[in-house]
Amino acid sequence: MNLRKGSRTRQTIVDEALGLARRIGLEGVTLGELASSVQLSKSGLFAHFKSKEALQLAVLEEACDQFTRHVVAPALTKPRGRERLEALFENYGNWIANHMREGGCIFISLSQEYDDRPGVVRDRLVEAEQAFRDVIRRVASGAADLAGKADFDADQFVFGFMGIGLSLQQAHRLLREPGARDHARQAFRQLCALHGL
Amino acid sequence: MNLRKGSRTRQTIVDEALGLARRIGLEGVTLGELASSVQLSKSGLFAHFKSKEALQLAVLEEACDQFTRHVVAPALTKPRGRERLEALFENYGNWIANHMREGGCIFISLSQEYDDRPGVVRDRLVEAEQAFRDVIRRVASGAADLAGKADFDADQFVFGFMGIGLSLQQAHRLLREPGARDHARQAFRQLCALHGL
Repeated sequence: MNLRKGSRTRQTIVDEALGLARRIGLEGVTLGELASSVQLSKSGLFAHFKSKEALQLAVLEEACDQFTRHVVAPALTKPRGRERLEALFENYGNWIANHMREGGCIFISLSQEYDDRPGVVRDRLVEAEQAFRDVIRRVASGAADLAGKADFDADQFVFGFMGIGLSLQQAHRLLREPGARDHARQAFRQLCALHGL
Repeated sequence: MNLRKGSRTRQTIVDEALGLARRIGLEGVTLGELASSVQLSKSGLFAHFKSKEALQLAVLEEACDQFTRHVVAPALTKPRGRERLEALFENYGNWIANHMREGGCIFISLSQEYDDRPGVVRDRLVEAEQAFRDVIRRVASGAADLAGKADFDADQFVFGFMGIGLSLQQAHRLLREPGARDHARQAFRQLCALHGL
């Protein structure tokens, strides 16, 4: 197969699978349906992914890549301290709220789907979740250093930060509350104040 | 069919379906598999539930009933104010953490499963979520009254309360963090202090 064309086709499959996974969950994406929606034969699709698991891991990699590009990397261009922390929070809020039509934050959905399903997909998901928590921990600790907070409790801050994102996803996507984003921003300001940031 | 026996069989089906739903989601529970795991014929199961949707609604009712019995009702036996609010939070934490082996808080899992699936199951789930939020709002407002907090922002408090539960579920069940429950309790004390409760 032509290498460049093969790589484009692979990307099309992954994009389509990610779109489906956002709506119906990753376990619900079958290779048969996916093949027909990207107009490939099932064996054509198998040329790119030998198993459902390989496809699931590729979808997760794509989601991680998008998350890095849209949420983490732009925040890291900001000056260290409160400004970078605020950018991280705003980007995360956009990620959750702007993905409204496409199923919200896919990592939150997958957390629920895979918490009881041991295996490589769950392991990769945990790794991705831990990596984001490490970013929050580092960025917030940077803000604490600049604010001269020697007793900053980074783990407690991360717990609170994640809770705001999770509550936003639920209030915004399940309950369609118009004030959800404002509540999230207010909760973030309160969390920062509480930790002296 | 013998009425009492029929009702027992119905309860067995619902219990089994709820157990499965906690682990694999409600959409993943098929009538065929369910029938075989409760040792009924498919037509025997159909005598109790005419459709998958009717079964899903019955499972949701059972979960609501358990939630009321384990979380809400015992808290309402406590004196109005901070004590009742603390009991509500502790019971909710137990509901999330003690359901570890059975898939954690089923309402949190279903939130992710149904946020993009319009229909009667989603509607009933939203109603259940709103009902719990109303309970939190009323109990917290009672505590605010007793504390003389005339400017209490009940919606912001509810947003924060739910975020703590969601973050606990994720840290405890996906990430298996041993300190998750302590972080949740600390976050709750901070939330109360922030709102002057």
